[in-house]
Amino acid sequence: MSLIMSRRDLDFMLFEWLDASALTERARYADHSAETFHQVLDTCEKIATDHFAPHNKLNDQNEPQFVDGGAVVIPEVRRALEVYRDAGLVAPGQLYEYGGMQLPAVVEKACTTWFRAANIGTSAYPFLTAANLNVIAAYGEDWQKATFIPPMAEGRFFGTMCLSEPQAGSSLSDIRTRAVRQDDGTYRLFGTKMWISGGDQNISENIVHLVLARSPDDLPGVKGLSLYIVPKFLVNEDGSLGERNDVVLAGLNHKMGYRGTTNTLLNFGEGGHKPGGRAGAVGYLIGGENQGLACMFHMMNEARIGVGTGAVALGYTGYLHAVEYARTRLQGRPAAAKDPTTPQVPLTRHADVRRMLLAAKAYVEGGLALNMFCARLVDEERTADTAEARAEAHLLLDMLTPIAKSWPSQWCLEANSLAIQVHGGYGYTRDYNVEQFYRDNRLNPIHEGAHGIQGIDILGRKVAMQGGAGLRLFNATLETTIGRARAAGDEALLGFAADLDTALARLNAVTATLHGANDLERTLANATVYLEAFGHITVAWIWLEQALAAHGKAGDFYDGKRQATRYFFHWELPKVYPQLDLLEQLDDTTLEMQDAWF
Amino acid sequence: MSLIMSRRDLDFMLFEWLDASALTERARYADHSAETFHQVLDTCEKIATDHFAPHNKLNDQNEPQFVDGGAVVIPEVRRALEVYRDAGLVAPGQLYEYGGMQLPAVVEKACTTWFRAANIGTSAYPFLTAANLNVIAAYGEDWQKATFIPPMAEGRFFGTMCLSEPQAGSSLSDIRTRAVRQDDGTYRLFGTKMWISGGDQNISENIVHLVLARSPDDLPGVKGLSLYIVPKFLVNEDGSLGERNDVVLAGLNHKMGYRGTTNTLLNFGEGGHKPGGRAGAVGYLIGGENQGLACMFHMMNEARIGVGTGAVALGYTGYLHAVEYARTRLQGRPAAAKDPTTPQVPLTRHADVRRMLLAAKAYVEGGLALNMFCARLVDEERTADTAEARAEAHLLLDMLTPIAKSWPSQWCLEANSLAIQVHGGYGYTRDYNVEQFYRDNRLNPIHEGAHGIQGIDILGRKVAMQGGAGLRLFNATLETTIGRARAAGDEALLGFAADLDTALARLNAVTATLHGANDLERTLANATVYLEAFGHITVAWIWLEQALAAHGKAGDFYDGKRQATRYFFHWELPKVYPQLDLLEQLDDTTLEMQDAWF
Repeated sequence: MSLIMSRRDLDFMLFEWLDASALTERARYADHSAETFHQVLDTCEKIATDHFAPHNKLNDQNEPQFVDGGAVVIPEVRRALEVYRDAGLVAPGQLYEYGGMQLPAVVEKACTTWFRAANIGTSAYPFLTAANLNVIAAYGEDWQKATFIPPMAEGRFFGTMCLSEPQAGSSLSDIRTRAVRQDDGTYRLFGTKMWISGGDQNISENIVHLVLARSPDDLPGVKGLSLYIVPKFLVNEDGSLGERNDVVLAGLNHKMGYRGTTNTLLNFGEGGHKPGGRAGAVGYLIGGENQGLACMFHMMNEARIGVGTGAVALGYTGYLHAVEYARTRLQGRPAAAKDPTTPQVPLTRHADVRRMLLAAKAYVEGGLALNMFCARLVDEERTADTAEARAEAHLLLDMLTPIAKSWPSQWCLEANSLAIQVHGGYGYTRDYNVEQFYRDNRLNPIHEGAHGIQGIDILGRKVAMQGGAGLRLFNATLETTIGRARAAGDEALLGFAADLDTALARLNAVTATLHGANDLERTLANATVYLEAFGHITVAWIWLEQALAAHGKAGDFYDGKRQATRYFFHWELPKVYPQLDLLEQLDDTTLEMQDAWF
Repeated sequence: MSLIMSRRDLDFMLFEWLDASALTERARYADHSAETFHQVLDTCEKIATDHFAPHNKLNDQNEPQFVDGGAVVIPEVRRALEVYRDAGLVAPGQLYEYGGMQLPAVVEKACTTWFRAANIGTSAYPFLTAANLNVIAAYGEDWQKATFIPPMAEGRFFGTMCLSEPQAGSSLSDIRTRAVRQDDGTYRLFGTKMWISGGDQNISENIVHLVLARSPDDLPGVKGLSLYIVPKFLVNEDGSLGERNDVVLAGLNHKMGYRGTTNTLLNFGEGGHKPGGRAGAVGYLIGGENQGLACMFHMMNEARIGVGTGAVALGYTGYLHAVEYARTRLQGRPAAAKDPTTPQVPLTRHADVRRMLLAAKAYVEGGLALNMFCARLVDEERTADTAEARAEAHLLLDMLTPIAKSWPSQWCLEANSLAIQVHGGYGYTRDYNVEQFYRDNRLNPIHEGAHGIQGIDILGRKVAMQGGAGLRLFNATLETTIGRARAAGDEALLGFAADLDTALARLNAVTATLHGANDLERTLANATVYLEAFGHITVAWIWLEQALAAHGKAGDFYDGKRQATRYFFHWELPKVYPQLDLLEQLDDTTLEMQDAWF
């Protein structure tokens, strides 16, 4: 059994639940078959196992160093990424014309979990590159596509996204980096960007930064932001590298976890790249003036779901490690069999250990299923038959994005904590792997929109957008599942259907109360609570979907799905009621709290 | 404002709530006054600030090394402990005859929080020594007391507790280290001990191990365990150090956090301490044959509450760091004021940040108050006027010990996570302090009886002991507080009293259901849920106690206590209802889960 990911579970989600095979009937995916999907998954498992997992701990123990003005990573990272690139895995979901293999998004998502679970640090480089490539594919001018996409798809250039600045993290309104238009139509950028993952490294030939900066007309707030392509090395017309651009590594951030990915402070336009250096980093506008945030959100929405996937992958591998440990570690005896002369039993014989493993299973498989479902929506968004169906998929994905990001970041981190707990003292040591997964995963509630930002997104924006159309679609989607569960003629499913129906009705009533209050400050004060309740209801639905896909099938795997569904409905879903009560009362405890009272 | 601990809060608990001054009327504490209590607290704050906090990060970055068969720590640890020792702080609560200063336990507890919060790694050495000293004082023969107590009280010898072995962590029944009786009445010990904090170091002249080992008669299980004093160096009659004992450092554990304290694998009796070394580690029986577990629990109960105190201290300092950061870091604007041309506001202006800080405040001040209350019970147990009152204090302390250990280990760790979240990306870097507190605190749900073990303790043992007398006393204690809150004539307090009354009644009903089920395996399967519900109800009561102590007093500090009480009752206490529902249903989801289904 692999300790990285469960291929059995991925196959279940792809082929028994989300019907990935049916996608081969769509034009975009017509060259594929279930067979090619299996082949690419085999390849991913093999490369992740042979080239990514072996240096995961090394990445943690030997974080990137600042040497001669650049970031230096351990050689294992480069070697793994060469294998990855040679297998054509940088952007497997992209169109052939952009170097991709036109894999369905849902298959691509399954692929990515292998690398993230095996080595979150190393895998971040190509994933950022793919997200960057997707923006250029969507918004770039022809010359920009021709210049940057092929070397990125080939893994020769890597990409980054440069949003945050030292004084502007969650508050993008306060970005100060500015772009100055030149007579030749290019721009010169000046400013400092913070928290830039992959902002420098010694792996790729070049780095393509996508930089959010203030447009020349300098409108205030986010309205005045545009997006610019800023390569580390300028690229000549023949594709060869030109002179060094004025982007300088100012420092590396030293993190608690996720250490394999360089995280950088970058100076643009300070002339530090060479003696007498050019004043200003050469940048190329992409997507139009003052369209920066819209373009960046194309990348950010993808990145947010990607954060969720990373959180799932870290939680999942931790869970698999914990199961393996609990099956082999002998300790104590069951509650009702205390004779100390009998042999010790495996940890899995203790109900409390099963509780921890079952909770972790419910979190990681629930989180994975949610992320896979979102990827399946991307396929609908791209290839559904009708414009209406495509728009509907887009809308539902928009609704679910804050959940797909925040829920795994919270609960799969909890799964990592449980994995440590199952290991006892051993889990707290660096001789085992689970403590690293926990440290790595603690990043996920912070980056790509902190947890609280996701709450404001769902309550302040998503449930109200298009006159509530997104929320109605969410309701209709869940109700369809509830209807199928009711029709299945199974007592357990009937119970789950009733529980979900009740929770959903309550969520809607509370949502109406909140929006009816017409008090933005008071309503949004508890947005995080709303996010968490919404998330748990969403994942309960996702578990019901899985239970339906397992319905009528015999065997340990399906029994596990049924038991995890039962766990989620009995142990997890009821947690939303105190949250919904609090929201319904428009509780103002935190709102009224005063700074001086801390 | 100190970022280590809040002296204001400690003073509130000592002098406005737990009436520490009144203890000076008791014979044991008669030499003291409120003034001496303040003086010793001043001293602790100063030493913790000047000598412990400055090398906390160094401890983390430079963990102890294995050099020439011994553990070597950074020199700052030794220097800090010299200052600590010279101030007479090793066992300030002990009797004068044992080198103590007969401070009340509740004052001593307040003192210890400063050192744990400032530097959990360095402070572990003297705290383990004090716990060890207390066992020898309680159970030692006169020559044992005379030989070991003075040098420990003077900080020249340090102490350890040696329970776990590689194959015996939670399961003490499976301890294999054995003691062989010699003709001279001493013993020779043979075996391997794992996870021994302070098991070796280059700070103290000698190390006094208290070792749980199998008695010569070799009864099975925990009944056959005795406790032995095993010094690293034998001690001559004149107190000088004799030959090296057969206790050898076999390895150091490399942990995620808590790195300043050596954690060791020790071999006893393998003859590795010198060429042709003696076969067997010389040990001296303490507390009688087969009384090992009883003696060790004297130390362990103290250590369990000590773990809770450590968890509180780490959570508390993290909270203070987060408040400081949130007051000074400017970011964004309130929900209803989005004009990007206005200046950014401090983080504390965002309701969601206040939510995180208020939750952290409720956890760390609630946890501290619970631990202080337990220490106050120790004072009653020692010095109350009547035997009945002393027995009652002992019984209530017994009830509360698993909560005092487990609740802060869970919720003050959550406070540390919130402190990271408030800091955003900065909190995830090692340039700030909060990520270390989080890593350090993750140990606490594991050691001194893992979280699940505490659940079995409270549900399987404590609520049933003495025919339910402990539970009745717990009820009576809470009801007294509820009665006082009802009599206070304050609307908020009335509401809290009603909420606590309801939760307590429900807890009792559920407890009756569980014990009435007469199905040990099924009941204990959900013991951790019971533990957590019991803990939240206990801390709600502790908050009501604090609100009563603040009642009628004006000012920011008291307003903060009131708001945190409100937070706990509105946001936290309701979380117990889904837990109690689950328990009442005797839910068997985890019990029925099968190994093969994972």
